[in-house]
Amino acid sequence: MQPQDPQFEQRVRASFARQQAMMLIGAEMIDVAPGRTTIVLPFRATLTQQHGFVHAGIVTSIVDSACGYAALSLMPLDAGVLTIEYKVNLINPAAGVRFVALGQVVKPGRTIVVCTGEVRAVRTDGTELTVAIMQATMMVVRDREGIQD
Amino acid sequence: MQPQDPQFEQRVRASFARQQAMMLIGAEMIDVAPGRTTIVLPFRATLTQQHGFVHAGIVTSIVDSACGYAALSLMPLDAGVLTIEYKVNLINPAAGVRFVALGQVVKPGRTIVVCTGEVRAVRTDGTELTVAIMQATMMVVRDREGIQD
Amino acid sequence: MQPQDPQFEQRVRASFARQQAMMLIGAEMIDVAPGRTTIVLPFRATLTQQHGFVHAGIVTSIVDSACGYAALSLMPLDAGVLTIEYKVNLINPAAGVRFVALGQVVKPGRTIVVCTGEVRAVRTDGTELTVAIMQATMMVVRDREGIQD
Amino acid sequence: MQPQDPQFEQRVRASFARQQAMMLIGAEMIDVAPGRTTIVLPFRATLTQQHGFVHAGIVTSIVDSACGYAALSLMPLDAGVLTIEYKVNLINPAAGVRFVALGQVVKPGRTIVVCTGEVRAVRTDGTELTVAIMQATMMVVRDREGIQD
Repeated sequence: MQPQDPQFEQRVRASFARQQAMMLIGAEMIDVAPGRTTIVLPFRATLTQQHGFVHAGIVTSIVDSACGYAALSLMPLDAGVLTIEYKVNLINPAAGVRFVALGQVVKPGRTIVVCTGEVRAVRTDGTELTVAIMQATMMVVRDREGIQD
Repeated sequence: MQPQDPQFEQRVRASFARQQAMMLIGAEMIDVAPGRTTIVLPFRATLTQQHGFVHAGIVTSIVDSACGYAALSLMPLDAGVLTIEYKVNLINPAAGVRFVALGQVVKPGRTIVVCTGEVRAVRTDGTELTVAIMQATMMVVRDREGIQD
Repeated sequence: MQPQDPQFEQRVRASFARQQAMMLIGAEMIDVAPGRTTIVLPFRATLTQQHGFVHAGIVTSIVDSACGYAALSLMPLDAGVLTIEYKVNLINPAAGVRFVALGQVVKPGRTIVVCTGEVRAVRTDGTELTVAIMQATMMVVRDREGIQD
Repeated sequence: MQPQDPQFEQRVRASFARQQAMMLIGAEMIDVAPGRTTIVLPFRATLTQQHGFVHAGIVTSIVDSACGYAALSLMPLDAGVLTIEYKVNLINPAAGVRFVALGQVVKPGRTIVVCTGEVRAVRTDGTELTVAIMQATMMVVRDREGIQD
């Protein structure tokens, strides 16, 4: 896929750095490519739900950001990204030492960008298991006050 | 709707208290009724995304918990709840002084419980605006190691 | 909700009449209001899946049309409607003598319109049971060749 | 993936043959493998919506069947399949001479089976374009009256 802004990586990383929620949970963006980003989240007990697994909403947070920035990586300089909606299936308990969220664009558009995402748990022995899959719709936003990148 | 466990409220509140992720973000359960719960989240800058609104994943976290506990409130004593999947539409920017998530059961079942949820932003002037709607599928889990309530 | 085209009902009904798929399955639009439409589908054995219930895709067809036309009812004269995405929970088997699909706008927007829908089965004894719920995202389309109403 | 019933293909095809809705629209099952099926639907004007594209609900019908039978292909002999829910993104107009729906299991389970699906349009010149993607949740049903295969 072809980025419209040659500085897309720098722009995506700068925007991610402004997501205070990612800082709060300890997530880091480890890779940015045109139409694809990767975010990693180390396990912390403070992120868990009642069974000791990472909360579904936290799992969703990292894969939403991964998908949103996959979309933003392809957008022109004057555009920002908003999540319209997503659907997540939680297919295995989110147990592991860290979690890797992959977001990728499957259909770029002038106004609507459709993405798919995945979260993999990395276990103590280094093996990986997919814990969640996402199908998401992002919107290209232009000239709206307060919305940039 | 008819709870199968007369102590449902105490059980739901005790389980919610074990969700460390809710503590991390500052969410509180303010109401539990059979098939319906309410969670409130005060705004904090640490919960925001790049535009200064509360992150979609955080919005999702509170309404997922509200829906999951709405489901658990109707379950028998020996059962726990797991989120299978959900879909969220983010219909307005999550701007406000606090956010109220409502989760309710629309179809209780022996194995599958379907819920709908909503998150309302309360603004400085006290008015409310719906910022997200959820449609979710929860599962009744029995006799699975590590899964209770 | 306020329609932008005073002739919205006539326009919605004319567009529905062009949906050959609705004719094929025997669906009729029985009500149009600003931001809300109702479609009815009598049971036919030719619409069923392997267990004798109406096929989930057919159930989806009528509630997608109901939601799409709910959205179109609020749009200006030069705009058409496209379904971007939807999510459907099939909460009871689609058994009945006829099925009533209700679509309504929950968030009208300049570009994006979010709707919820429901399909109720009417049984032999006249009672109704909800068989499906939908959460859908529609798009306002302007000036695109081949897309009108 | 490992089928539990060695006669899975025959069983899936026999069940598909009972889906009268597939006959009505002219869909055929062209491939069955463990955890994966393919359905093809030739274009017919009677399947269209108001813009002349195949109706989203018809597109959904074939990919729902493809996903459901992908799930059934892995189930034991005494089990049937029910669609719990799905989410579909319609990423390109459904224009073409025929449509190919692929359904595959991404997470088999004792009770819940998660699938992804895709519908590709084949155009006059033989090229293909993805028109829809699905993320679906299927349920394994045992000993329920009227539900088999």
